[in-house]
Amino acid sequence: MANFGGHAIPGSFFLLFGFWLTLKCTLQHVWRTSQPKGRHNLPPFFKKMEYVEGGLQIFASFVGIMVEQFVVDGPHARLYDKENNSWVKLMNWQHGTMYLFFGISGIARIASAAFKVLPAGVDRLTISVALFVEGFLFYYHVHGRAPLDAHIHSLLLVAVFGGSASSMLEVFIRDNIILELLTACFFILQGSWFYQIGFVLYPLSGPKWDLNQHDNMMFVTMCFCWHIAVAMLLVTCTVSVVWFTVKRFSASRGDIEIGMQTTPSKSSSHRALLEESDDE
Amino acid sequence: MANFGGHAIPGSFFLLFGFWLTLKCTLQHVWRTSQPKGRHNLPPFFKKMEYVEGGLQIFASFVGIMVEQFVVDGPHARLYDKENNSWVKLMNWQHGTMYLFFGISGIARIASAAFKVLPAGVDRLTISVALFVEGFLFYYHVHGRAPLDAHIHSLLLVAVFGGSASSMLEVFIRDNIILELLTACFFILQGSWFYQIGFVLYPLSGPKWDLNQHDNMMFVTMCFCWHIAVAMLLVTCTVSVVWFTVKRFSASRGDIEIGMQTTPSKSSSHRALLEESDDE
Amino acid sequence: MANFGGHAIPGSFFLLFGFWLTLKCTLQHVWRTSQPKGRHNLPPFFKKMEYVEGGLQIFASFVGIMVEQFVVDGPHARLYDKENNSWVKLMNWQHGTMYLFFGISGIARIASAAFKVLPAGVDRLTISVALFVEGFLFYYHVHGRAPLDAHIHSLLLVAVFGGSASSMLEVFIRDNIILELLTACFFILQGSWFYQIGFVLYPLSGPKWDLNQHDNMMFVTMCFCWHIAVAMLLVTCTVSVVWFTVKRFSASRGDIEIGMQTTPSKSSSHRALLEESDDE
Amino acid sequence: MANFGGHAIPGSFFLLFGFWLTLKCTLQHVWRTSQPKGRHNLPPFFKKMEYVEGGLQIFASFVGIMVEQFVVDGPHARLYDKENNSWVKLMNWQHGTMYLFFGISGIARIASAAFKVLPAGVDRLTISVALFVEGFLFYYHVHGRAPLDAHIHSLLLVAVFGGSASSMLEVFIRDNIILELLTACFFILQGSWFYQIGFVLYPLSGPKWDLNQHDNMMFVTMCFCWHIAVAMLLVTCTVSVVWFTVKRFSASRGDIEIGMQTTPSKSSSHRALLEESDDE
Repeated sequence: MANFGGHAIPGSFFLLFGFWLTLKCTLQHVWRTSQPKGRHNLPPFFKKMEYVEGGLQIFASFVGIMVEQFVVDGPHARLYDKENNSWVKLMNWQHGTMYLFFGISGIARIASAAFKVLPAGVDRLTISVALFVEGFLFYYHVHGRAPLDAHIHSLLLVAVFGGSASSMLEVFIRDNIILELLTACFFILQGSWFYQIGFVLYPLSGPKWDLNQHDNMMFVTMCFCWHIAVAMLLVTCTVSVVWFTVKRFSASRGDIEIGMQTTPSKSSSHRALLEESDDE
Repeated sequence: MANFGGHAIPGSFFLLFGFWLTLKCTLQHVWRTSQPKGRHNLPPFFKKMEYVEGGLQIFASFVGIMVEQFVVDGPHARLYDKENNSWVKLMNWQHGTMYLFFGISGIARIASAAFKVLPAGVDRLTISVALFVEGFLFYYHVHGRAPLDAHIHSLLLVAVFGGSASSMLEVFIRDNIILELLTACFFILQGSWFYQIGFVLYPLSGPKWDLNQHDNMMFVTMCFCWHIAVAMLLVTCTVSVVWFTVKRFSASRGDIEIGMQTTPSKSSSHRALLEESDDE
Repeated sequence: MANFGGHAIPGSFFLLFGFWLTLKCTLQHVWRTSQPKGRHNLPPFFKKMEYVEGGLQIFASFVGIMVEQFVVDGPHARLYDKENNSWVKLMNWQHGTMYLFFGISGIARIASAAFKVLPAGVDRLTISVALFVEGFLFYYHVHGRAPLDAHIHSLLLVAVFGGSASSMLEVFIRDNIILELLTACFFILQGSWFYQIGFVLYPLSGPKWDLNQHDNMMFVTMCFCWHIAVAMLLVTCTVSVVWFTVKRFSASRGDIEIGMQTTPSKSSSHRALLEESDDE
Repeated sequence: MANFGGHAIPGSFFLLFGFWLTLKCTLQHVWRTSQPKGRHNLPPFFKKMEYVEGGLQIFASFVGIMVEQFVVDGPHARLYDKENNSWVKLMNWQHGTMYLFFGISGIARIASAAFKVLPAGVDRLTISVALFVEGFLFYYHVHGRAPLDAHIHSLLLVAVFGGSASSMLEVFIRDNIILELLTACFFILQGSWFYQIGFVLYPLSGPKWDLNQHDNMMFVTMCFCWHIAVAMLLVTCTVSVVWFTVKRFSASRGDIEIGMQTTPSKSSSHRALLEESDDE
């Protein structure tokens, strides 16, 4: 992963996931606020989205683990080399471990949508754990590198642990649009920062960055704040576009609810009852 | 900014903003408690105040960024000097970044007052992010200075991150007068401490402070506590003055509610409904 | 304060305050649970206790500050010695600053009981700030001492900041008996640990402790845990004794409520209304 | 305790306790969700389980303390050796202190089940304190060891303090199945990690681990994440097995409620009333 592509790929995934979360929670919020008072069951449309999302997470994690293992200079599923008394390609194993937890999160998402007895919030908890594990591994990852390299990776931890804390809060504070958008914002920030790390450590063109210069570290710190501003702007734009699209669509179709709702099943009202007893 | 004025200007702004917040949330609290039971819509008077406040925030941020950029020894919108392979005046850029986020907070405040579909709490979230970014940049700012200089700036972080945490809590715990006054208190503390930094590092008269003496650090630590006490006293006095003024005014005018309320619009009751679904 | 007595006096105060808090919140809890359902107004008996408590806090703080200032080798209200260009007895000034905040907390307690418009929780907030300031000053106090001396004071910070966090939580989570007893427990722990510091640093008899020996630090760490256990035991015993005394008293008198309640004033029901709007 | 067995015994206890917590809170959740709406009183069956659990905790703690004291090379209840001016076997005393707090937690559990006046949450608070004390002692325990030894013990702290924080949250957020399972998960993680520490520091066969090699630390960090995944898997499997067993049992017996409920006593409804006033 020690090249530009190795940072661009996870960056793209996190960016996409952030946008997807923004889109999803905006649609859910529009739905909830357009309903009459009381507990609202989300239409089956959202459930199908959960299946697709979970499925893609599992697929991407599986591919990620396989690639890390069976790439040309990968460990090929060997963990310990007894001949040389050394561990084999621990970096690849660590990346695989990170992917594994995002895969687990995908499984929890599908299970959460499929089985109504599962308590609401399991999917957020697993995402929170996945981000915690990512940050946890990165934290020890960074040890003993050049100052700028260590600094730029430790700034990533702000986005990772921020997202983890935000997701964990979502387990307890349900259906709060601000919190959901905050989580999405942390994902977009993480994605764009992965790109920034790629540009700084493996510049596509131009001279290499001096990894020990203090001014470079000052710029990188400030640049992280600009990424925060850009992430907030991107989330705001996405929400606005989704909002106006839905409003125009619903005005032309007559009523958005009719377009999305099919039949509230008896089981989903049972789910709502479960949720209520969990929220107490 | 490395002079007394450079610390007095932001100090004055934070002091004013703290007093303004105290005034605003006291008036809102008086309004809420003087209403009959149930969800109360704030009168349009408060909405206009939000517009003015947001507008001033945007204006001050814009002026601040322009001054930092186009002051005589400023970067003049140049970020990287390719000839000398060095960054241009990063300190000015960092200050500009801080102002940018307070500007964003102003935009969010106006948008929050103008568009009723925006979830309540967006304005508090952006203020919290603005303070976080300020503290974040200061944290790395301080690195490698004289002991007293580093210490006096790190004490500032207590006020900055305290205000950030307090504002973030306000996103989730709405209309809590204690929390709102606590945030205002942190702003006043930050403002008065900026003045203190100016007095210590760039004394207007008398001898320079010894930046390495341990006793000076002990005094500065204690002095910060005195600033806390003074900030609490100032907030208490402001609240008392506002309270008694409103009570006398309302007694002479007959009823304060009549004085402030015009007509509760249909849209604002729609807003209250939105807020309720967010608060769940 | 660098002697046994200087640690025994604050220790005794904190022990007494802890027991007093335990007693008070047990009585309030008994009262609340013995009332019929709905918002209960505390009887005037508790309000009088608040006045006494606040008054004692203010008196003790005032005496403490005066003693620190005008003791034989005190600063006598002089802060800076211009002749020697040095600060005068900063340690005494720091202790005075700590007392000041406990005095402010006493004023807030009385004001909170006297004026019904004050939002509930102001008294807890000021206690939390007082403990935070105490811990804040101790934190920088400890710097550059012998290992055991620094360690034993930093353990005190666990009790101080624990109490501060617990009091701060009480601002938002009202009338939770467990939280109130936890705060009381932290005060008792702090008090008994002050005694322990006195015994270790200024032993009344026997040899001096070796301030650099690692085994001594290990013992002191373990000893802190024993103090936690003892504090929990003391709180439990106090609660039990109060509980059984009240129950026997109420059985012999007929009804405890009659014994304590006089007449619920119109104003206190107004207070309850205020509290409800704050708690939202 | 400096051998494999000394880590396997506490590991087994924590594993068993984690599984037991998972089993218990799954059964309680099934019970709560199968009841009609409103406050549900748990059947006496659960109360008996609390007695058994508390009794076992007390018994195990007592045995643990006795073994630590009176083992062949133990301190035999002597704390200070006046002849050599040294502390006697502080490590054994520290382990005994940890056991003591788990014993206190057992007493609180029994008292909580026996006396209805005790506020709900006391049992969780004592478990939280017990874990805090364990982590607190381990934190200073680790000081000055070989890098891998220190690292592997500091990873244990993640599980210990995580469990402590999770239990503390349970005091305030009652009957939340996700939080209860999270606590159980932290116990299982702690148990399995104790085994891992045993395997690494005192390998049963094969060569010793190099305690200074950086690759070993990287592997151990990653291995901790695998333990997290395994703990989550074990909790999920246990919950599933319990769930399906209960469902099949309840289908064959007719109704699960009838099988478990005997007679809701008048006193337990009084308890529910107490809980409600605490939760406010």
